[in-house]
Amino acid sequence: MNAEINLAEKLDTFAEHWSPRTVALYNSHDVMVVKVQGEFVWHKHDDTDDFFLVLKGVLDIQLREGTVTLGPGEMFIVPRGVEHRPVAREETHLLLIEPTGTPNTGDPATAAGRKLA
Amino acid sequence: MNAEINLAEKLDTFAEHWSPRTVALYNSHDVMVVKVQGEFVWHKHDDTDDFFLVLKGVLDIQLREGTVTLGPGEMFIVPRGVEHRPVAREETHLLLIEPTGTPNTGDPATAAGRKLA
Repeated sequence: MNAEINLAEKLDTFAEHWSPRTVALYNSHDVMVVKVQGEFVWHKHDDTDDFFLVLKGVLDIQLREGTVTLGPGEMFIVPRGVEHRPVAREETHLLLIEPTGTPNTGDPATAAGRKLA
Repeated sequence: MNAEINLAEKLDTFAEHWSPRTVALYNSHDVMVVKVQGEFVWHKHDDTDDFFLVLKGVLDIQLREGTVTLGPGEMFIVPRGVEHRPVAREETHLLLIEPTGTPNTGDPATAAGRKLA
């Protein structure tokens, strides 16, 4: 595993939206890439902050008190417990970090599965 | 603090090499940007993996069994306990993540201070 991880190459291996792929493990967290487009659901994570870095495209992170808009090279961390909804007006590529095993909706019952890239 | 974090703008606020600036906190970790050039020291972190993402430039991460070379959009995680030496042939900009309070050399006695950007 002593090889560089090229994020664009990892993103080229799949097309589905809202289906994060784990590219590395870091201190019991999954480092993931994901393609998103359209609106996700309002949710929150009570036990973890939520890390978003835009690699390509534009992401609106809607919060109850306003919206944070991220372009390439911009990041935002949603603090634990804070309700938010990611919305991508175009196909957008993200780097995400979450504790291994975190459901992406904050609720195991509605969470999408996680795959390896 | 509900604002996007633009990594290039944060990097524009300082010029020193090997002096990470914390741009956000994530699950008891510091998310940092740093400008590097030249050779760092061989070191290891016994209690944490070491996260490197190249934003600009080229980084060689020398390991005892070989070198991993990273360009923009490429990342590598040095597992805890693994000796490594970052080397940048040109000025290179990185995103780093480390548990808050981690000395950058793995040794508090020789660590550089950490600043906020």
